[in-house]
Amino acid sequence: MSDSDAILAANAAYYRAFASGDFATMSSIWADDGVSCVHPGWPALIGRDAVLDSYRDILHSQNRVRIAYREDTAIVAGEEARVLCVEIVEGAAALAATNCYRRVDGAWRMTHHQASPIAAPLEEIEPSVRGRLN
Amino acid sequence: MSDSDAILAANAAYYRAFASGDFATMSSIWADDGVSCVHPGWPALIGRDAVLDSYRDILHSQNRVRIAYREDTAIVAGEEARVLCVEIVEGAAALAATNCYRRVDGAWRMTHHQASPIAAPLEEIEPSVRGRLN
Repeated sequence: MSDSDAILAANAAYYRAFASGDFATMSSIWADDGVSCVHPGWPALIGRDAVLDSYRDILHSQNRVRIAYREDTAIVAGEEARVLCVEIVEGAAALAATNCYRRVDGAWRMTHHQASPIAAPLEEIEPSVRGRLN
Repeated sequence: MSDSDAILAANAAYYRAFASGDFATMSSIWADDGVSCVHPGWPALIGRDAVLDSYRDILHSQNRVRIAYREDTAIVAGEEARVLCVEIVEGAAALAATNCYRRVDGAWRMTHHQASPIAAPLEEIEPSVRGRLN
């Protein structure tokens, strides 16, 4: 498997853990140190404790949203990588998401996540999204 | 100078180039490859050409906003680094910004920028900001 494929697979695992509310897996996806996260509308969370506490709350919430993702693109530079993708929240709102990874003992662990609202209507971002989601 | 100080200095140079509308300096701040950028409300831009085109337009715009930054925190991992900071746009709106850097020939070059609106009122994010800006 190429680095790019491995990183996109790690990125897919992140969204699976989110979708299933699997905090134990989410905890293992994140790196042990040097992590940060900006959830939509939130200030930055810095450090593993703050980031994982936020995911525990989000994954255990009754109101956890359904997130699909599209257009995942990997950028690799040695032991660090980034995936840019579009998150579709509840089939309606589009977010521009950046997920950063570091290779640790052969596995790509997450070091940073940021998702921010895209102002354009969903149809302009990806005309076929609604058709595929519905 | 420590890595952390050097990265915070590189981050300061980015905001100086933005404030002065200096596209030539902005162009040299960004790395030659593997770059991406998510401006507030925008979908992701991937690749140096797309990113630099956006900065040319923004820096040459008559409506370029005034951006101050606060609470800059550096996270370093070998040849890669990230700065999290709060951008204050026109003294009013707060954004959570992430700026990623890679060490190239001893210099920290920017590889990614993303800024996303913080939903909380500015006073809750940093009570003293208004006093310092006014």
